[in-house]
Amino acid sequence: MIIRPEMLAKIHITFKNGVLDPQGKAVHHALKDLGYDEVSGIQMGKYLEVRMEGVSREEAEPRVKEMCEKLFANTVIESYRFTLDS
Amino acid sequence: MIIRPEMLAKIHITFKNGVLDPQGKAVHHALKDLGYDEVSGIQMGKYLEVRMEGVSREEAEPRVKEMCEKLFANTVIESYRFTLDS
Repeated sequence: MIIRPEMLAKIHITFKNGVLDPQGKAVHHALKDLGYDEVSGIQMGKYLEVRMEGVSREEAEPRVKEMCEKLFANTVIESYRFTLDS
Repeated sequence: MIIRPEMLAKIHITFKNGVLDPQGKAVHHALKDLGYDEVSGIQMGKYLEVRMEGVSREEAEPRVKEMCEKLFANTVIESYRFTLDS
């Protein structure tokens, strides 16, 4: 029997501090128009769940880091963070 | 002195089970092309941070629920969940 461990990476991608977030600004504006005056700020980001098979936590960690830098995040303006659940 | 409590809502919006996620499929395909054959599935979603001022946790909770249903999520095809940090 072959054991195929499964890992689930939960990835958050957000704009770096100081980067203009036009989508966030638009949503903030829409909330004000709807009467949500208590809202003082919005940050829009992406959330990804990546399911992996046949890899250990030690193998998965650098692979997910690579995916984030190559494909998911634009590291000039975005930062990423992730957790790994088995 | 007026106390202005601050709350931070962290909101995750994801597709409901069974809803076609073309962006997730495209990213999955791109990962395969890049050699990440261990990836068995991708779920793309949105992540929002909403900062609120002058509201208690009890006041914030139904307001954030309302924002999600009115503005952030399309509840026909998306589900949302959130946490509140003070």
